[in-house]
Amino acid sequence: MYNFKEKYQFYLNTFEKYLAENAKMLTTTPNVLGESMQYSLFSEGKRIRPVLLLAVAEVFGIDFSDVLPFALAIEMIHTYSLIHDDLPAMDNDDFRRGKPSSHKKFGEANALLAGDALLTHAFALLAEAVADGDISAQQCVRAVKELSTLSGMKGMIGGQYIDLKYENTPATLSVLVEMDTLKTAALIECACALGLIAAGVEDDEISYARDFARELGIAFQITDDVLEAEDENDSSDVKNGKVTYVSLFGVEKARELAAIHTRNSLAALNHFGDAAAEIRLIAEGLLYRKN
Amino acid sequence: MYNFKEKYQFYLNTFEKYLAENAKMLTTTPNVLGESMQYSLFSEGKRIRPVLLLAVAEVFGIDFSDVLPFALAIEMIHTYSLIHDDLPAMDNDDFRRGKPSSHKKFGEANALLAGDALLTHAFALLAEAVADGDISAQQCVRAVKELSTLSGMKGMIGGQYIDLKYENTPATLSVLVEMDTLKTAALIECACALGLIAAGVEDDEISYARDFARELGIAFQITDDVLEAEDENDSSDVKNGKVTYVSLFGVEKARELAAIHTRNSLAALNHFGDAAAEIRLIAEGLLYRKN
Repeated sequence: MYNFKEKYQFYLNTFEKYLAENAKMLTTTPNVLGESMQYSLFSEGKRIRPVLLLAVAEVFGIDFSDVLPFALAIEMIHTYSLIHDDLPAMDNDDFRRGKPSSHKKFGEANALLAGDALLTHAFALLAEAVADGDISAQQCVRAVKELSTLSGMKGMIGGQYIDLKYENTPATLSVLVEMDTLKTAALIECACALGLIAAGVEDDEISYARDFARELGIAFQITDDVLEAEDENDSSDVKNGKVTYVSLFGVEKARELAAIHTRNSLAALNHFGDAAAEIRLIAEGLLYRKN
Repeated sequence: MYNFKEKYQFYLNTFEKYLAENAKMLTTTPNVLGESMQYSLFSEGKRIRPVLLLAVAEVFGIDFSDVLPFALAIEMIHTYSLIHDDLPAMDNDDFRRGKPSSHKKFGEANALLAGDALLTHAFALLAEAVADGDISAQQCVRAVKELSTLSGMKGMIGGQYIDLKYENTPATLSVLVEMDTLKTAALIECACALGLIAAGVEDDEISYARDFARELGIAFQITDDVLEAEDENDSSDVKNGKVTYVSLFGVEKARELAAIHTRNSLAALNHFGDAAAEIRLIAEGLLYRKN
């Protein structure tokens, strides 16, 4: 039996290897645009979305090579959202994952374009996966629908918008949950759905994975807020006057909320029985993490 | 026989009617995001890309209802590019199509998100067209590949990047042609290709339409530069220190260049014979236009 760290590292390495091979193709003439796309993609992140995608696909025993293009597509969407989110007009963050944010390194205009280009290229990857024989045209269409909906105006971007609207404004718990469901959980749901679409799983079966992913996404965000509140070096949300679970309820109550959503998340996995042992391991490790 | 204006107006009305019916669905909670997406989509523009898409599809006698989702998708891509292009970090334009630009009306952060959301929703429309029975899954995959490639890092966005790079810097004719091939012609090529993909036309046949569209795109851009140079109220390019065909060669030589590309464009239509009579009418009207 694997432990969490070993298994996470296995999925992570699988993804990083694929990323290294494929991101080389992100080149332009002149190349600053391609370079800026690669710069942000190669930042050190947890790669939660690709890791979950691979873990969920493994429940159905699918070959990783068939789902890796989807994993890269979703990481590109996540990466573009961070680049745009860091811009002065948005959160105005000078650092991201321990290095200068895209606009500090390449300038605002290039950062804007790098984000647009990563967003656009994510969809190119889905179409290329058909040409490469990894998935069928029908699977690609399902994936395009999934990715565009959950990262779009009623998904991730909608969440960003609510986030901006409530800067320096009191928000209730229900607003906060809606914001995080859109801003964070939607893309985690998307990762799980894409893994299962690539595996050829039907929609009713996927709905259990959606329940799991949404609850995990909320629990993950609350845990993030708690960890950030405890880390004196990370005060980006406080600086921007953002409402968080901790600012609304304090650390202890926020931990309780995280525990509730964690239990809901793990309960949704029961549907998949023993086959979900490894995704359960990953989920527990993420939810009980210390950083 | 129609004249240019009547025929253009016919295509335009067909598109505007479809847009009005469908853009209503762009709503969010709270709704400023949906409102900002609609605000820019409903600006008065020439709608060149949707008009060309419909005109090219008509060469093959395809039902407009099958291609209109593609026409809206490409107009969304064009619209997002204008919103992002107008931002202070880019061209810093306060007005667009006679009304305040998105960031002047809704603020920079909302304008950024409105652009991202339109870009993302364009791909959602392609997938929805399959569910609606307008196109097959295979056609959708071809369309996703086309749209993501020609609007992406090696298409429109690549052109934007070259445009920024050469602000206040001497550029040669070849740089200018490459920039406009990417920035303007790529999306016009995409419109024509999407129209033919929806019509079920094979790739080798589409290549003639591509030649037509690329040459038309360049001629269109040169004509734009000439008209802008002659209009004292429109000096955005001069303000931003942009190199144009007129700044490089003067008005007369620019007109000659436009005429060459116009001839190339119309020559490519010969392949389609008499069936291309109406697209020829549209192309001639656009190229010999006075505003």
